[in-house]
Amino acid sequence: MTEKEIDFHDYIASVPDFPEPGIIFRDISPLMENGPAYAAATAKITAFAKEHGAEMICGPEARGFIVGCPVADRLGIGFAPARKKGKLPRETISVTYDLEYGQAELFMHKDAVKPGQKVLVVDDLLATGGTIKATIDLVERLGGIVVGTAFLIELVDLKGREKIKDYDLFTLLQYEGS
Amino acid sequence: MTEKEIDFHDYIASVPDFPEPGIIFRDISPLMENGPAYAAATAKITAFAKEHGAEMICGPEARGFIVGCPVADRLGIGFAPARKKGKLPRETISVTYDLEYGQAELFMHKDAVKPGQKVLVVDDLLATGGTIKATIDLVERLGGIVVGTAFLIELVDLKGREKIKDYDLFTLLQYEGS
Repeated sequence: MTEKEIDFHDYIASVPDFPEPGIIFRDISPLMENGPAYAAATAKITAFAKEHGAEMICGPEARGFIVGCPVADRLGIGFAPARKKGKLPRETISVTYDLEYGQAELFMHKDAVKPGQKVLVVDDLLATGGTIKATIDLVERLGGIVVGTAFLIELVDLKGREKIKDYDLFTLLQYEGS
Repeated sequence: MTEKEIDFHDYIASVPDFPEPGIIFRDISPLMENGPAYAAATAKITAFAKEHGAEMICGPEARGFIVGCPVADRLGIGFAPARKKGKLPRETISVTYDLEYGQAELFMHKDAVKPGQKVLVVDDLLATGGTIKATIDLVERLGGIVVGTAFLIELVDLKGREKIKDYDLFTLLQYEGS
């Protein structure tokens, strides 16, 4: 299967009323479980990362790892995780932020990003932009230079891109509605 | 830097008393944040996966994703996640198991693995083997054939390998003590 033959929409499962009534959850697991589709999506984000001179990929747990780790590997660079409370054993910095549903706190190790390092920040889904903005804040507080952001899916009605409008943005797929 | 020059031990941070007193936590984040070290570790697990004819990589959240996703990408195959409660939106199966500290439940989507599919099960660390055994159980209940298991780190004194002795095992690094 070549990249041109892949309609990535075919590999996203839309699940109504998850995790709450009225939310349509866009599930990337069919995509990541299909080798050619996962590889094609990874190729697109890798091209964007390369264009922007990324020296490190950073993503929030856990789906950000699935998106970002193969991109880091293809470029021969590292992957720096942003994690929830209690997961990182060494000295961290943290940020509290609003989610589409609820509030959350995200942490990074103080030595995860080097000052001046060019970082691409990735996640599976851009909704309100809260999680990615928190991750960007952490990277910048560590002295990293965020060269762009990339996602598999953008929920366009939630206008997350307005929250990160200072950064170049790549989204593989766009969905209307919440 | 060539693979031969890498001593992977240099990229593991040993953190005493995390997450509990008396536990030495082996932190893989310096490894994944270093491009050549992460690539070299990924190359070793990919070679093992290829030898065993893996058609799918499966790993538990979240560090299993960091280990397994680049391996899946290098082989052009999919990655099937095993996740904690409330994370997978579609129909799942689950298993409850004992951890080194506490108890946990792990879930997979019913369609994550196809019957007869050859699956390599990976995680960052083999401790008592509870998490990996739970993941293996889920894959086998879905009809998958577990062709092997692979880890970055083995805590040899915890004898996790005895719990999965029916499966070919690859561990990149071994540590004595808990």
